[in-house]
Amino acid sequence: MDYKRLIIRGISYSQTQSGAYALLLEHEETNVKLPVVIGNFEAQSISLGLEKDIHPPRPLTHDLFAKFVTSANFTITSVIIYQIIDGVFFSNINFKNNLNGEELILDARTSDAVAMAVRFEVPIYTTPQVLSEAGILLELDDPGTTEAEFSPIASEGDLASFPLEDLHKLLEDAVKDEDFDAALELQQEIKRRNKKIE
Amino acid sequence: MDYKRLIIRGISYSQTQSGAYALLLEHEETNVKLPVVIGNFEAQSISLGLEKDIHPPRPLTHDLFAKFVTSANFTITSVIIYQIIDGVFFSNINFKNNLNGEELILDARTSDAVAMAVRFEVPIYTTPQVLSEAGILLELDDPGTTEAEFSPIASEGDLASFPLEDLHKLLEDAVKDEDFDAALELQQEIKRRNKKIE
Repeated sequence: MDYKRLIIRGISYSQTQSGAYALLLEHEETNVKLPVVIGNFEAQSISLGLEKDIHPPRPLTHDLFAKFVTSANFTITSVIIYQIIDGVFFSNINFKNNLNGEELILDARTSDAVAMAVRFEVPIYTTPQVLSEAGILLELDDPGTTEAEFSPIASEGDLASFPLEDLHKLLEDAVKDEDFDAALELQQEIKRRNKKIE
Repeated sequence: MDYKRLIIRGISYSQTQSGAYALLLEHEETNVKLPVVIGNFEAQSISLGLEKDIHPPRPLTHDLFAKFVTSANFTITSVIIYQIIDGVFFSNINFKNNLNGEELILDARTSDAVAMAVRFEVPIYTTPQVLSEAGILLELDDPGTTEAEFSPIASEGDLASFPLEDLHKLLEDAVKDEDFDAALELQQEIKRRNKKIE
């Protein structure tokens, strides 16, 4: 499989979607970008993982996880964002047993995969399919564009890309599942759309 | 060392301290309680770890960590809250290598330690020192005290005094009215009641 290497371009805060961040990954060669919506905790963890000189007083969950991986004589060799379904990115973390060389692959949320990748300083890959499905071309050198893309809109990336009728369907499902957090977000997005239409 | 076993008495949301929760641990024998302030993400993860019948669509960080621990042929035997400094609880997670029986102890935030303990269904211990330093006697059978100490709804006063069946009715109504803010609060209150019953 012809994997495409991604670099971390930045993390931006969403002002409309409380507690949501957009992790911006970029394909090295084509500059195609993948905006991944992640939570507050994951955003903090990735940022701290990137800043090697900053050490939180207590280990974050990913620091603890990384410490255990190393203590158990394993390492992480790479992470791969292997698919996107309904705006949700799915990733694999590739572990290697240092003692017998055996490989172990675990399914992970992309936010967790990236948080571990930065701690082990290993590459983040994705597939051509994911890049073509979810990649966006975005000129980051133009601040205007950046703002426009990354204040509310980008961090609501997946929701924003759904047709209104899909949002209503998702809202129904969220209510059925008693996932009122999601229901609130969907309700806000629908209201936002309706305002735009007005 | 004469370790004292703790049970999880509940998790409550704090409306004053935005995004903060109180994890209430209780010493089985003396009913002395340890309120541990934890973050939103950790609170959700502990709650989901406790509710074995609920499986999030994607693995949370602690689910991923637990999956790796098992895949690496390790297990967790117990967690110990071993000290408190300036109001911060320090914990150890006790791992065991299933292949050679060797033990591995890692320092962890108490929220991470508890999140892993509930996933491996292992005991949570603390020391007599921590209990005497940070333990509080709190009569949870007195609703007044409970709500005052541990419920967000309490600060608003009303919901806490409603019977459980009324809460279910109110939840239905809130959903009908698409008032998902209220639905969330009612859901939390109902979950909190159910936890107490356990």
